[in-house]
Amino acid sequence: MRALHIMERKKLVSEIFKKKSMLCVGLDTRFDLLPEHLQQLPLKDAMVQFNKAIIDATSDLAVSFKLNTAFYEQYGSVGWEIMEATLALIPDNILTIADAKRGDIGNTSKMYAKAFFEQMNFDAITVAPYMGEDSLSPFFGFDQKWVICLGLTSNKGSLDLQQLDMVNGEPVYLHMMKQVESWGNPSNLMFVTGATHPKVLAELRSQFPEHFFLVPGVGAQGGSAKEVCAMAAHKTDGGLLINSSRGIIYASNKEDFATKAREAAEHIVLDMQDYFV
Amino acid sequence: MRALHIMERKKLVSEIFKKKSMLCVGLDTRFDLLPEHLQQLPLKDAMVQFNKAIIDATSDLAVSFKLNTAFYEQYGSVGWEIMEATLALIPDNILTIADAKRGDIGNTSKMYAKAFFEQMNFDAITVAPYMGEDSLSPFFGFDQKWVICLGLTSNKGSLDLQQLDMVNGEPVYLHMMKQVESWGNPSNLMFVTGATHPKVLAELRSQFPEHFFLVPGVGAQGGSAKEVCAMAAHKTDGGLLINSSRGIIYASNKEDFATKAREAAEHIVLDMQDYFV
Repeated sequence: MRALHIMERKKLVSEIFKKKSMLCVGLDTRFDLLPEHLQQLPLKDAMVQFNKAIIDATSDLAVSFKLNTAFYEQYGSVGWEIMEATLALIPDNILTIADAKRGDIGNTSKMYAKAFFEQMNFDAITVAPYMGEDSLSPFFGFDQKWVICLGLTSNKGSLDLQQLDMVNGEPVYLHMMKQVESWGNPSNLMFVTGATHPKVLAELRSQFPEHFFLVPGVGAQGGSAKEVCAMAAHKTDGGLLINSSRGIIYASNKEDFATKAREAAEHIVLDMQDYFV
Repeated sequence: MRALHIMERKKLVSEIFKKKSMLCVGLDTRFDLLPEHLQQLPLKDAMVQFNKAIIDATSDLAVSFKLNTAFYEQYGSVGWEIMEATLALIPDNILTIADAKRGDIGNTSKMYAKAFFEQMNFDAITVAPYMGEDSLSPFFGFDQKWVICLGLTSNKGSLDLQQLDMVNGEPVYLHMMKQVESWGNPSNLMFVTGATHPKVLAELRSQFPEHFFLVPGVGAQGGSAKEVCAMAAHKTDGGLLINSSRGIIYASNKEDFATKAREAAEHIVLDMQDYFV
């Protein structure tokens, strides 16, 4: 087994200020959306070459890469090989996130934690809190690894449970985030908070002043990086990983895809610069 | 791609009455818990041989096999190969469940649905409802496939969210189950309801008279199949898949593991016979 990759908070914050960026690039890669010249290649070669080109073109702009496991699992065991090969291409100074949204009873969550933290050697994994403390606590048992718990997600379906009120008057997402906060600490726990709820982001920042937020929903889903920074940046540590997937990796479906991906990434990073002045 | 495997409700119910069983065997297989003689083999061979022996020994007693994906993902891409090889060994008259507890934004959930229903060809997948309707609806778009949504889970952590009350006085799990009910129908939707809450099972049966319940928590977690049947069986269709994993597959860690697994399975099936008299 490879030595565990470490991306502790201090190192992450240092990268954020070195790059003046809180960009997370989402590698939601689909074979059927690859540029035509890559679709001539076998599945694994095509996907890995595409990811390599995106990583090479954007890794000086991004502080994190996020692989949504669904996009790889759709290809079965080959998909997992692609995910493993992709991870090996990501530079060491970058936080890697398995966007897996896992969560199960304790002995099973422990298997997931081993899968993503040890076997795959990701720095972080997203988890879903529906099953409560014993479903998440196994993920906290890994030194220098990050748990990123769903709080308020960017999709319309967040209305169906997360935004409903509990009997104590708090919305479900806030109640859950407060509980989850007590199971971890700001050096091993982040929250997923969607960019499509900018006003709520400011409230969440005052409620959770120290935690990093992973913020999806910029770009294709409609949120703005500028607004997210204004509402929810941490006072000194950046405190945000602002994710864009489709808006970057599919900025062009031609041979210039990597150049266009870089331009799209630069555009989002530019939107964050008010924070760094 | 293989032809899609079909296990519609009528066929499932017919198998239940043919076998007089609502047993689901959980293949939560771990290399480090295999009998010593199998641990001498390479990982993939050992895991597949073990699963084959369990399947051969119990497939006339079980109407369903459930593979918890965590146990396979811990081995990376090889784990997915083991899962694929195992699925190919399960007889055609058996419902196969990917216990994956997935759920993500719509375009991502669609990838998961393709992964498990098409690429892997499972009959059913477990999903987590925290992200709401658009995170689950893509799973309902597959003809003759089953969505098994977490309702009230068997673990202690179900107290942290599921069993808390919403502002309307309903517990979270019940509120979610009612919503999810309206997104599917009793021929494509089941609920996960833990055996560790027997009284609640009876209430859930009267609330959801037609749906199948996947009931984990029998055996190692403390629930009883007899009690579950008494509380929650469907009036005519069985309506339950009562799962046991560790209690069956690790009944012995010696060379007689398959024989002992069969005995453990027989014991649980015997506990269901009041329903079939």
